[in-house]
Amino acid sequence: DPSLKVFSLNSNPTLAQEIAENIGTELGKCTVTSFSDGEIQINIEESIRGCDVYVVQSTCEPVNQHIMELLIMIDALKRASAKTINIVMPYYGYARQDRKARSREPITAKLMANLLETAGASRVIMLDLHASQIQGFFDVPIDHLVGVPLLSDYFEGKNFDDVVIVSPDHGGVTRARKMADRLKAPIAIIDKRRPRPNVAEVMNIVGNIEGKTAILIDDIIDTAGTITLAANALVENGAKEVYACCTHPVLSGPAIERINNSKIKELVVTNTIPLKDEKRIDKVTELSVGQLISEAIMRVHERKSISILFD
Amino acid sequence: DPSLKVFSLNSNPTLAQEIAENIGTELGKCTVTSFSDGEIQINIEESIRGCDVYVVQSTCEPVNQHIMELLIMIDALKRASAKTINIVMPYYGYARQDRKARSREPITAKLMANLLETAGASRVIMLDLHASQIQGFFDVPIDHLVGVPLLSDYFEGKNFDDVVIVSPDHGGVTRARKMADRLKAPIAIIDKRRPRPNVAEVMNIVGNIEGKTAILIDDIIDTAGTITLAANALVENGAKEVYACCTHPVLSGPAIERINNSKIKELVVTNTIPLKDEKRIDKVTELSVGQLISEAIMRVHERKSISILFD
Ligand SMILES: Nc1ncnc2c1ncn2[C@@H]1O[C@H](COP(=O)(O)O)[C@@H](O)[C@H]1O
Ligand SMILES: Nc1ncnc2c1ncn2[C@@H]1O[C@H](COP(=O)(O)O)[C@@H](O)[C@H]1O
Repeated sequence: DPSLKVFSLNSNPTLAQEIAENIGTELGKCTVTSFSDGEIQINIEESIRGCDVYVVQSTCEPVNQHIMELLIMIDALKRASAKTINIVMPYYGYARQDRKARSREPITAKLMANLLETAGASRVIMLDLHASQIQGFFDVPIDHLVGVPLLSDYFEGKNFDDVVIVSPDHGGVTRARKMADRLKAPIAIIDKRRPRPNVAEVMNIVGNIEGKTAILIDDIIDTAGTITLAANALVENGAKEVYACCTHPVLSGPAIERINNSKIKELVVTNTIPLKDEKRIDKVTELSVGQLISEAIMRVHERKSISILFD
Repeated sequence: DPSLKVFSLNSNPTLAQEIAENIGTELGKCTVTSFSDGEIQINIEESIRGCDVYVVQSTCEPVNQHIMELLIMIDALKRASAKTINIVMPYYGYARQDRKARSREPITAKLMANLLETAGASRVIMLDLHASQIQGFFDVPIDHLVGVPLLSDYFEGKNFDDVVIVSPDHGGVTRARKMADRLKAPIAIIDKRRPRPNVAEVMNIVGNIEGKTAILIDDIIDTAGTITLAANALVENGAKEVYACCTHPVLSGPAIERINNSKIKELVVTNTIPLKDEKRIDKVTELSVGQLISEAIMRVHERKSISILFD
């Protein structure tokens, strides 16, 4: 369908290429470079007049560069008379700043939504938002995909004997529950608490993990503090072995070192944030969300429901 | 006046400090740092409820970082119930992307205006916009200050015998005319033209420069190609000596090397963009716009006309 165009910016070129191939098209021609003073220069090199344009860009590190690239691209597409401008944002940066936890804090996740709409986005396709409430920050339609089926299918292929799905905190229990349903496994929860102020946290485990293969699941793994402490606590408390998985491998600061030194046997992630070379360690397995996103794009373009992709 | 607060972000801390001192206040307390993954974290550490807040930030390099800092700060101030949020943006980045020069280009200068308003800016105070038309990109009030008086006063102090003010291109003639009026000097114009395609440009000089001290004036000096070629052409055509000045010293890429190797005797700039250490060379003199901006802020706050600052 020549009215469907897929463009890539600089965050996820490989994923964008895979998406274009799945859809049976070529990536739209554009150059995204910088002037000598660091200002972004975008040139769209083919007509997109009247087209439904899909722009693939995660706002992962360098987050401010990637968000500005995206906003400027949307501005250019709008002025070039695109019919719809659909943002495919596998990873939504600034999602953790989604409320005023303290006085006088910004709500940057909402600001991002406003900026995208102001620039001219008609729709945003996202994966595993840190908080589903962020959907409500937008006035344009959101398609919210989930990584649980992809991650579950991978572990299903391992045919573990006796599995338990573990949420590393209370916020992630629903996600763990979904994976447990798919793998027909029970769940457990890491129940962190601080007995007294200025005393180290105690990792209490709710649920039976004794002798089982534990699979920790989270949406984002950033500095990997939570997940590696949880893994070690699981082993100390009798788990046979520990796997971990997440949709968004931010993996900043000490993350890779911590994972290497932890009791985690394998960490399974997706390519919503592409792994830089120094993060491609033996313990980390990367799955592609390319198939999932391509199907979502095609279903959206053909005006079909996408809820089938969650089951 | 306790209802007037001045905050600095990371682009111009020294200038912001000078402005606060001139106004007789202290800089507002806030921390602007980054999380481990590069996301900006802002904490405003004093109440600003009901206050008129002035935020000093140029969108100079790293431009995308600086614009995001500013947008997030505006969001935080808005949610913290500031009465008005006044942006003091000595240098307006992306100003040169102010029109579609080619098909399918963005108009990033307009996008920036929209983003600032969406975030919650109530007013923007700026200096020497690359094109005055950018004022019309905003729906909120703009106060547009000019650097010509400051630069002219500096050269006035040198008591040159026989001066001519030179515009390096046709776009800058009005600015050169303003400086010439102040210094009671004539003007000249560098009239670049390309005799045939793919042939080097010819630097034709319109006006009499023979034996005179020439002062080149521009708004932005970026890679310094235009200004250094102009200076050398002036000397070759009989100027006694050449000075150059501009409001915004972007000075990217080969700029400093070119200036050092050129016939420019002294380059006078302002601190709308602070000079990094490696750009603080003998030939470059930095003047402060602190006094000008402080007066503008006080007059705005006291509901007085600021047009007096241009005369
Ligand atoms: N990029 C980030 N890196 C680390 N912490 C963050 C980041 N953004 C927000 N936060 C903090 O994470 C907390 C929200 O995370 P959560 O409680 O998991 O939703 C808030 O207290 C934020 O201050
Ligand atoms: N940051 C930048 N550095 C160099 N050139 C730029 C920059 N931004 C825009 N331009 C180009 O500068 C031209 C506009 O400059 P001007 O003709 O002086 O207004 C346009 O052709 C732009 O493509």
